[in-house]
Amino acid sequence: MPFQARRLMLPLLAFTLASASLRAEEGMWTFDNLPTKKLQTTYGWAPDQAWLDHVRLSVLRFPGGSGSFVSKDGLVLTNEHVGRGWIQRVSSKEADYVKNGFAAATREQEIKVPGLELMTLMTMDNITDRLAKAVKAGTSEKEAHKARHAEIEKIKKEMQEKSGLTCEHVTLYQGGEHWIYSYRKHTDVRLVFAPELQIALFGGDYDNFTYPRHNLDFTLFRVYENGKPYTPPDFLKWTRTGLKAGDLTFVVGHPGSTKRQDTFAQMIYSRDFAIPMRLKGLESQKEALVQYGKTSPEAARQAGTQILRIENSLKALRGYWSGLKNKEAMARIEADEKAFRAKVAKEPRLQGEAGPSWGRIEAALKVARSQAKDNAYVGTAHSTLLGYALSLVRIADEEQLPSEKRLSEYSDTNLKTAKARLGVPTPYYPEQEIFVFTRGLEEAARELGPKHAFVKAMLGGKSPAEVAKAAVTGSKLGDPEARKALLAGGRKAIAGSQDPMILLAKKLDPLGRALRKRQEDLVQSVLTEHAGRIAKARFAVFGKNTYPDATFTMRLTYGPVAEFPANGTLIQPFTTFGGLFDRYDGWGGNAAAAHDGAWRLPQRWLDKRGALDPSMPFNFAHKVDIIGGNSGSPVVDRKGDLVGLIFDGNIDMLPGNYFYDETANRGVSVDARAIIHALEKVYGASALAAELTGK
Amino acid sequence: MPFQARRLMLPLLAFTLASASLRAEEGMWTFDNLPTKKLQTTYGWAPDQAWLDHVRLSVLRFPGGSGSFVSKDGLVLTNEHVGRGWIQRVSSKEADYVKNGFAAATREQEIKVPGLELMTLMTMDNITDRLAKAVKAGTSEKEAHKARHAEIEKIKKEMQEKSGLTCEHVTLYQGGEHWIYSYRKHTDVRLVFAPELQIALFGGDYDNFTYPRHNLDFTLFRVYENGKPYTPPDFLKWTRTGLKAGDLTFVVGHPGSTKRQDTFAQMIYSRDFAIPMRLKGLESQKEALVQYGKTSPEAARQAGTQILRIENSLKALRGYWSGLKNKEAMARIEADEKAFRAKVAKEPRLQGEAGPSWGRIEAALKVARSQAKDNAYVGTAHSTLLGYALSLVRIADEEQLPSEKRLSEYSDTNLKTAKARLGVPTPYYPEQEIFVFTRGLEEAARELGPKHAFVKAMLGGKSPAEVAKAAVTGSKLGDPEARKALLAGGRKAIAGSQDPMILLAKKLDPLGRALRKRQEDLVQSVLTEHAGRIAKARFAVFGKNTYPDATFTMRLTYGPVAEFPANGTLIQPFTTFGGLFDRYDGWGGNAAAAHDGAWRLPQRWLDKRGALDPSMPFNFAHKVDIIGGNSGSPVVDRKGDLVGLIFDGNIDMLPGNYFYDETANRGVSVDARAIIHALEKVYGASALAAELTGK
Repeated sequence: MPFQARRLMLPLLAFTLASASLRAEEGMWTFDNLPTKKLQTTYGWAPDQAWLDHVRLSVLRFPGGSGSFVSKDGLVLTNEHVGRGWIQRVSSKEADYVKNGFAAATREQEIKVPGLELMTLMTMDNITDRLAKAVKAGTSEKEAHKARHAEIEKIKKEMQEKSGLTCEHVTLYQGGEHWIYSYRKHTDVRLVFAPELQIALFGGDYDNFTYPRHNLDFTLFRVYENGKPYTPPDFLKWTRTGLKAGDLTFVVGHPGSTKRQDTFAQMIYSRDFAIPMRLKGLESQKEALVQYGKTSPEAARQAGTQILRIENSLKALRGYWSGLKNKEAMARIEADEKAFRAKVAKEPRLQGEAGPSWGRIEAALKVARSQAKDNAYVGTAHSTLLGYALSLVRIADEEQLPSEKRLSEYSDTNLKTAKARLGVPTPYYPEQEIFVFTRGLEEAARELGPKHAFVKAMLGGKSPAEVAKAAVTGSKLGDPEARKALLAGGRKAIAGSQDPMILLAKKLDPLGRALRKRQEDLVQSVLTEHAGRIAKARFAVFGKNTYPDATFTMRLTYGPVAEFPANGTLIQPFTTFGGLFDRYDGWGGNAAAAHDGAWRLPQRWLDKRGALDPSMPFNFAHKVDIIGGNSGSPVVDRKGDLVGLIFDGNIDMLPGNYFYDETANRGVSVDARAIIHALEKVYGASALAAELTGK
Repeated sequence: MPFQARRLMLPLLAFTLASASLRAEEGMWTFDNLPTKKLQTTYGWAPDQAWLDHVRLSVLRFPGGSGSFVSKDGLVLTNEHVGRGWIQRVSSKEADYVKNGFAAATREQEIKVPGLELMTLMTMDNITDRLAKAVKAGTSEKEAHKARHAEIEKIKKEMQEKSGLTCEHVTLYQGGEHWIYSYRKHTDVRLVFAPELQIALFGGDYDNFTYPRHNLDFTLFRVYENGKPYTPPDFLKWTRTGLKAGDLTFVVGHPGSTKRQDTFAQMIYSRDFAIPMRLKGLESQKEALVQYGKTSPEAARQAGTQILRIENSLKALRGYWSGLKNKEAMARIEADEKAFRAKVAKEPRLQGEAGPSWGRIEAALKVARSQAKDNAYVGTAHSTLLGYALSLVRIADEEQLPSEKRLSEYSDTNLKTAKARLGVPTPYYPEQEIFVFTRGLEEAARELGPKHAFVKAMLGGKSPAEVAKAAVTGSKLGDPEARKALLAGGRKAIAGSQDPMILLAKKLDPLGRALRKRQEDLVQSVLTEHAGRIAKARFAVFGKNTYPDATFTMRLTYGPVAEFPANGTLIQPFTTFGGLFDRYDGWGGNAAAAHDGAWRLPQRWLDKRGALDPSMPFNFAHKVDIIGGNSGSPVVDRKGDLVGLIFDGNIDMLPGNYFYDETANRGVSVDARAIIHALEKVYGASALAAELTGK
């Protein structure tokens, strides 16, 4: 009942911006615009610049996630699930570190992870004004888009040359602000410790996005420089006190994407069309991998982490969708938009600039809908090799053009990374590749129809199975050396290549480019232009006392360790080691292996059970405003000490993609004490524990 | 997601009765009509007559609940919350057995509980045909009602005289069948063991009606006869194996009331009017007790169990209500009723008998609505003493009439019980009585208005506080001896009494009688008559392959120990002693005393924690079809051995008042092993454990 009552009172931030109506805990704040006054009022304390610098320099961006420096010798803490792909990359059939875990007994045993790059955010520069000058009034949406793109590339290049840092363009407030974030990049990263998948992901897909939870979802890497452990200028000290219910926490990391400032029409488009379509695609992709996994135990191992990744996406997407299907919330969003538009309409200047924008966006969504199937199925059909081939074909061509005329992923500032990626050795399984590529082609043929140009080009009259088998077995592109050679050979090498994947990529390339151009000219440029105009109108009406949608850039969110209402009762703020074993025993243990053993425990944990303190905190829930990408973010206290490691939210967090409801939206973190207790009592890794705690 | 999908497939039993559409686990079955074939098909086993007789004779009916004989020396097992009122009755300020628990070290220490009567069901006789003959065709609803009532009284009296048993009339299938159930009554019942309230009700109102759960909700009584432990002809043996997930369980007890066969109009009436009104009444009653409890620690103790009882009712009622607010389910119920009515309309005989019944019921509900406020507020205004007084006034008058002309609760077969109740000493707190009576009168005055005859009669121009204080302080009726004296004195004593409560009761009596007559003549008799006609039409259309709504008579339900989907994941079938401490620790323990200490543990449990096996099962969830009144029912396995003790359902059980949805509806039981483990390890009650296990 309280849940329902509160929901009705929920202020919808994206459209009601008055600072008083923001929930104390709502917001993924940028470092230049923290709600310092509100923190001061609510908690009697707010971070100062030294605290913020210390935390910012301690935090790292991982590919798709976050992390932090946690020792003077460059130890890096993140989630096992953020590191999983990289752990798998250094694993093999013989040494499956994902399944069995890994612990380097000495620094010499730390394993270099090829391709893993971590980023420290050094500077943030606002380029909104400069960029505005690059677009002349009255320019068409398409031309404005181009002009902006060119100017951004120019600025990035200038800054990159000047600082030697990696510069990235960041769009905040749907284009209301533009920034350049400059990162220091760490490229020698080594695996130090990983727990067994079964304890990092205890409860599997069932417990994913839920709480109470019992996941030891952490892993440790170490950054090296010049072959030696790196000494970071800042790192987070390990807590000496730990948290209790009600304690204030801060989460600093990289939330990936939210859509709270989407127009109502965009939300409806997502609800009724885009998400159902995406769900269908993911379900079929998962099904292909499940079927492949059934062919042998080795196939199951290969497909395992990919299936988990897809299940994770499916559950998240269903959770987002549930937000959009919340009729009360949607009615409020609609009403708030109407009220905002009425305010805009009252001021002629705003109405002239942004008044038509909602209609333009709606029109663009109609176009998007008309080419959505093409966008979904004209592509690499889940083939990794075809992905490599397409990159090779495109790089060879794009290199010939001036940077600003290239596809954005091959611009001067991105080309190096794109090329480097092709040289990274990645586990490659021909059988799996044939299986999923066949399924991908079958699906495209079914969805697009046999007469579609893409289908005709790919199949050329043959069956998907024939095409996939011939292309995969005939291709050398699974070998990084072969890719590097083609890359080095440039256009000539590509032109002369008879590799079947290159041949397919050549057919795919013009189709993909044409589609992308239509999407950019008719959809993306319109959305960008008009979301930006609406954002500016919003600043004009409400001022800038809120946070932008998530953009996988550094944000701070804060709030107390807190219970929440669910399942007819209140859910406790902490779980414990005892609770982990309760969940294990409650399903009948390893012997019963209920639900494919989702709640199995590694034998080591059963052997060491007697040595563990059942009251020791394991995971906790806190009122913070997070979303995918925050995974691996450190949880720090007022002192800036590390008290936890966020790895998930509860099921009520997911509608947060579209709106924030503090009633039950909670982040879920590993308690810092659990990491030390497990390292010491289960893994006998006392030296590592000592390095973390500085003892 | 699966939850949603399944809900859509839910067959609504009450209206679709075809046996194939019944979920395997659905049904509160009478012993004369068990789904033996379905059990056989689904589980390859069904109980035989010996099994049924053994279980029936082992089971007991408690006031408002169920229980069972569990030792050859007459030990009786039920829930602590079924026994709580009785435990409180033998408690005092100095010896608070509810709070601190109780354990008789020897049989001499077992405490006789005055007024507690337990019933063993000996025989069941179908009187439907005989009763049908007592009502002539063409009789009005009101006259039929009277004739049926008189005939039932006659039958009961005959049977009671013949058997010496306590005979009760039972209406099944809304009047489709009438039975006499005859009970052997046990009147010497003694308290043997009770755990502390805090472990019996761990999690308080928060965890009530939820699962995962950790309640040691059991208590032990012993039946005596002629001053010696009674040797029951049958008792349940304690399991030697225990349960595991998927094992088939049987629950035999007394589900109190369901409304699955209500017409759609009745459900709408409940949803939109009756339940909201009842919720309002309960909330205000609770509020009065809470306010009273704040006046002193002793007041808090006095009000405590009553508040818990009201909170329990509130949560249950809200759960029932949530079923009625389930739009999909209600749409199905409406459609099923429409289809059934169409079938009835096709057969002239059925249409003649039952066709107009739905309309007649709807009309009666309009009348009910018009006098609902009077029904709710014309009464004893929460005063216990006024309740005694009204009984005394009425018994004196009613005794003068022939049995069949009396109010039913004073008919020959009931009079003795009614009189006996007046002689039972009950804890009586004048301050509390004044407090709640004042509130009750205030509420009646507010709701009915100052000019209402009842308000004028009660207040006579004074304020509620004045009236309540004067009546409570001036009355002797808190003393059982005073009540007994008035009872013995009959009409003359009542006529001469100047006890202020008797004076108020004399004013209340005619108002209450008139209201009750209107309700019986215009509402109850119509509902009875037409629900019966609809039930008969249902037998005609679908046959008798289903179970009747619950009527607080013995029923059997069955189903496996099973998980269920909730909170974004699957909930485990068993909880453990380790899980109990996890829930304790997760809230910060006794020191934090979160939420008024709802998850506190008795000190004894903390002291003995080290001696307990954390993996030992504590509670479990199973797919059985239960409702309030089932509390205390034994859970038995195929062998007929006791494997658990049902005490609750999860939050998804509550809509079961109106329809059954197997997706997440689960019963919640104490595991039999938990009882023995706690007796041995926490309470050092090994002798008792040995008596239970027969070791």
